[in-house]
Amino acid sequence: MYSSDITCMREALKEAQVAFDRDEVPVGCVIVCGNRLVARAHNLTETLNDPTAHAEMQAITAATHAAGGKYLLECTLYVTLEPCAMCAGALYWAQIGRLVFGASDPKRGFSTVGDRLLHPKTTVAKGVLEDECARLLRAFFRKKRD
Amino acid sequence: MYSSDITCMREALKEAQVAFDRDEVPVGCVIVCGNRLVARAHNLTETLNDPTAHAEMQAITAATHAAGGKYLLECTLYVTLEPCAMCAGALYWAQIGRLVFGASDPKRGFSTVGDRLLHPKTTVAKGVLEDECARLLRAFFRKKRD
Repeated sequence: MYSSDITCMREALKEAQVAFDRDEVPVGCVIVCGNRLVARAHNLTETLNDPTAHAEMQAITAATHAAGGKYLLECTLYVTLEPCAMCAGALYWAQIGRLVFGASDPKRGFSTVGDRLLHPKTTVAKGVLEDECARLLRAFFRKKRD
Repeated sequence: MYSSDITCMREALKEAQVAFDRDEVPVGCVIVCGNRLVARAHNLTETLNDPTAHAEMQAITAATHAAGGKYLLECTLYVTLEPCAMCAGALYWAQIGRLVFGASDPKRGFSTVGDRLLHPKTTVAKGVLEDECARLLRAFFRKKRD
């Protein structure tokens, strides 16, 4: 079922929409191992009053619990926005097999810091459903300004 | 009571010792606001099967809960080992006022990645009780090899 990048990113987008509806910066994430979706999460920094409660951090914790181990070598993480340095650092420790993100983050994305944050074995794809991912973020910040 | 760097780092070392005794990589951390210790934690990655369960991550979450807000501008985080990129990224989001660490980590320390990980307002001091912090780590890895 979760066999294409588009299908999986749509699931991440559903999570981002939940965040939007809760007045959180709308970033959503899922982790897929094989064809199995093992974790889904959205940004909860406001709700939890916790600056570390990014979608990716929660999904990594959930997926390693589900996997019963600290590593996610066979898994792909889908996230609607390019991960920040914190989340890329977490993906390094988890040794995620593959990272797929939608919109780029030219301000705080991990690629602005350097290319040494992710594990050397991690492959990266970007721009999947980029427009939809970015549109939701723009709508959120527009709403905030109004 | 928690007015000097040495006193606070001794508390972080106590946490590192707890980690050591639990067969975790011995890194300990405390967060101090004013003269009040608001969070203490040690590495729990093995116990929790969670690669994100570094001492600093847990202490940041606990301190923001205690503070009732996402930011730790008036706080100092003491940690026995130089934070990794993930933890430095978390300290950026928390806008920690000051970071003090003991031993440097030439392999995965945030300073090996670049100087843009921490918030520009965060001040840094290093080498506090460095020998004791490093000795505990060396003893752990020696024990693991035997």
